[in-house]
Amino acid sequence: MPTVSKRGQIMPESPIRKLVPYANKAKRRGIKVYHLNIGQPDLATPVEAMDAIKTLDRSILEYSPSDGILSYREKLVEYYKTYNINVDVDDIIVTTGGSEAITFAFMACLDPGDEIIVPEPSYANYTAFAILAGAEVKTIPSHIDNGFVLPPIEEFENLITERTKGILICNPNNPTGYLYTQSEMNKIRDLVKKYDLYLFSDEVYREFCYSGAPYISAFHLEGIENNVILVDSVSKRYSECGIRIGALITKNTTVRNNVMKFCQARLSPPLIGQLIAEASLDTSSEYMLSVYNEYLERRKFLVDGLNRIDGVYSPIPMGAFYTVARLPIDDADRFCIWLLEEYNYEGKTIFMAPASGFYTTPGLGKDEVRIAYVINKEDLAISLKILEEALKVYPGRKTK
Amino acid sequence: MPTVSKRGQIMPESPIRKLVPYANKAKRRGIKVYHLNIGQPDLATPVEAMDAIKTLDRSILEYSPSDGILSYREKLVEYYKTYNINVDVDDIIVTTGGSEAITFAFMACLDPGDEIIVPEPSYANYTAFAILAGAEVKTIPSHIDNGFVLPPIEEFENLITERTKGILICNPNNPTGYLYTQSEMNKIRDLVKKYDLYLFSDEVYREFCYSGAPYISAFHLEGIENNVILVDSVSKRYSECGIRIGALITKNTTVRNNVMKFCQARLSPPLIGQLIAEASLDTSSEYMLSVYNEYLERRKFLVDGLNRIDGVYSPIPMGAFYTVARLPIDDADRFCIWLLEEYNYEGKTIFMAPASGFYTTPGLGKDEVRIAYVINKEDLAISLKILEEALKVYPGRKTK
Repeated sequence: MPTVSKRGQIMPESPIRKLVPYANKAKRRGIKVYHLNIGQPDLATPVEAMDAIKTLDRSILEYSPSDGILSYREKLVEYYKTYNINVDVDDIIVTTGGSEAITFAFMACLDPGDEIIVPEPSYANYTAFAILAGAEVKTIPSHIDNGFVLPPIEEFENLITERTKGILICNPNNPTGYLYTQSEMNKIRDLVKKYDLYLFSDEVYREFCYSGAPYISAFHLEGIENNVILVDSVSKRYSECGIRIGALITKNTTVRNNVMKFCQARLSPPLIGQLIAEASLDTSSEYMLSVYNEYLERRKFLVDGLNRIDGVYSPIPMGAFYTVARLPIDDADRFCIWLLEEYNYEGKTIFMAPASGFYTTPGLGKDEVRIAYVINKEDLAISLKILEEALKVYPGRKTK
Repeated sequence: MPTVSKRGQIMPESPIRKLVPYANKAKRRGIKVYHLNIGQPDLATPVEAMDAIKTLDRSILEYSPSDGILSYREKLVEYYKTYNINVDVDDIIVTTGGSEAITFAFMACLDPGDEIIVPEPSYANYTAFAILAGAEVKTIPSHIDNGFVLPPIEEFENLITERTKGILICNPNNPTGYLYTQSEMNKIRDLVKKYDLYLFSDEVYREFCYSGAPYISAFHLEGIENNVILVDSVSKRYSECGIRIGALITKNTTVRNNVMKFCQARLSPPLIGQLIAEASLDTSSEYMLSVYNEYLERRKFLVDGLNRIDGVYSPIPMGAFYTVARLPIDDADRFCIWLLEEYNYEGKTIFMAPASGFYTTPGLGKDEVRIAYVINKEDLAISLKILEEALKVYPGRKTK
């Protein structure tokens, strides 16, 4: 049998999905499993989106343009304006999910051996996409005790070598829910400018900022317009993760021309997804507000509930729909598996993502989990109860 | 401005799409352009597929499993059985188009510097996907004069080095329409076995074999079950290129585990596309037969028409919906651009793909074009007339 690639062998397993077999086994045993592990919103997709499907008036489901349907891109220009992001229609390339936008950004900008710097904990698949491009992710830890603020900019600077090509941020952040401040973004801008780096900015959660602090897009930063590559997706915004529609946005024409070659090779992003995404831009403000309020309430409910449990600590996430919490346990991987394999409270258990998978620095996040508040408050209440009871009997419980 | 990747710079431009700007300019000048350049069928998507969209009964368009929806994969098992391809549901991984299947196959099997051997002319994006993986495509020319039969197997053997990891074939072939014989497939099998290579087999046109000769799948070859990676797509089969649904099929569990890591990183293939593809498997045999008959008639009409034009030669393609024809011209790239930029016959012109983009050996295919018969017979008749008239006045016309 011929050998497989090294690249495949070093690809990390998804921290969100690696425990899925355990969850499936629990379900087969008749246990009800509450999913706090994955950022799959439970809220209905907007009616505008669903109508676009049902009233589809085409006889052939044909290729769309490699950079996406023009009318959709034109409408996106208007959408971004409402966030004071001023881009032209040519700056926008529609991708197959945010995932493809990140992959193509790395493929177009990074050569094998190149490095990017990412504050951790971070979305685990950044590392996966970097491996696809042969590039390396260097991480700088942020810490739960100060609410995952941006690590000192000197730590970024210390990591910069001649192989460093960019910095990647996710804002609002997955998994921490942190929202970078103007002052932090300015520091990033200055560093990007000083070393002429790319700034890859994943901003798919911009609709979900809860603290009243402003959302600062990478495109709001002056003087680095040609360095910014914005990654976007409609998945979370409109509860339509399944349609796989994202975008890569940059004013750097050289990067864009490079990206377009990859786009042409894969022919086109999904047609029907684009039609749905375009219609979704007409979603009523009532829907958007109700979704926002729902997450806002759940956030308070979850975080308050977590902090009431003995030994548990969660900072207040300022955006997105996740929190990283610290638990009084020996090892979150072990605990999360134990919850699925051995524990149940009245026939129920919870599925959380061990935070270790969001760090690359060994040992970090060992007693942390990521919890997504994408289930309703009643189920969150049950989940909190399960967690509280489980921690009372978990054999690896830490006592101070 | 930071530098872009070398990978992006060496990516070839798509031979199908690189002349699109010329076509668009012609259209803006009011010229009617007949598209013979791209494999976008003009035939209606089956009603079963369209109904699946209109009757969609879901409130959330959520992520699907990374390897695809189980019920769809189960139904694919039955579909493949009708072609005597016996695979298990676990052997099938649903991908975002055949493009992603090829990309992931390369990513999972090939390391930077590894080589694969491909008979040319070949689908240009194989090279693009190999570049993504850092691998190299070595080509062996097949020739229009013998109808693009498989080059002597010794030529493959001569190219094998310690970096050679696989052979890639497309059967029935894009762009030539060639269908490999049992004897040719046996030779490929023996070589794959002797050197323990991967056999990447792109078989997306299996529905379209016109010569009565049997379609031999790579999975029909005995003794290399663990070497075969089959690439598939519903795009051409059901005239639904836009939904971006393909499949990667292999019995090699090590490869599959590697591929699944890439699948998990990109989360899932398009949800609605999968629902459409699943429904498409119920397409009536009347539809399939009428599509088949339509292509069969067009093929005869086109190839007969080409061979009637002075100095033009097209072999009879045995499958798919393309032919590669030789024209009495100096340079097909120049001719195709001239057709779009300078020529029109009664306000009409044709858009063909210069074959040079399907070869990597310099100089080959210089007087050849790929023509897709995905427009109706009336339009094919007009296109043939335009070609005939254009060749009479083209300044680079070759006289014997």
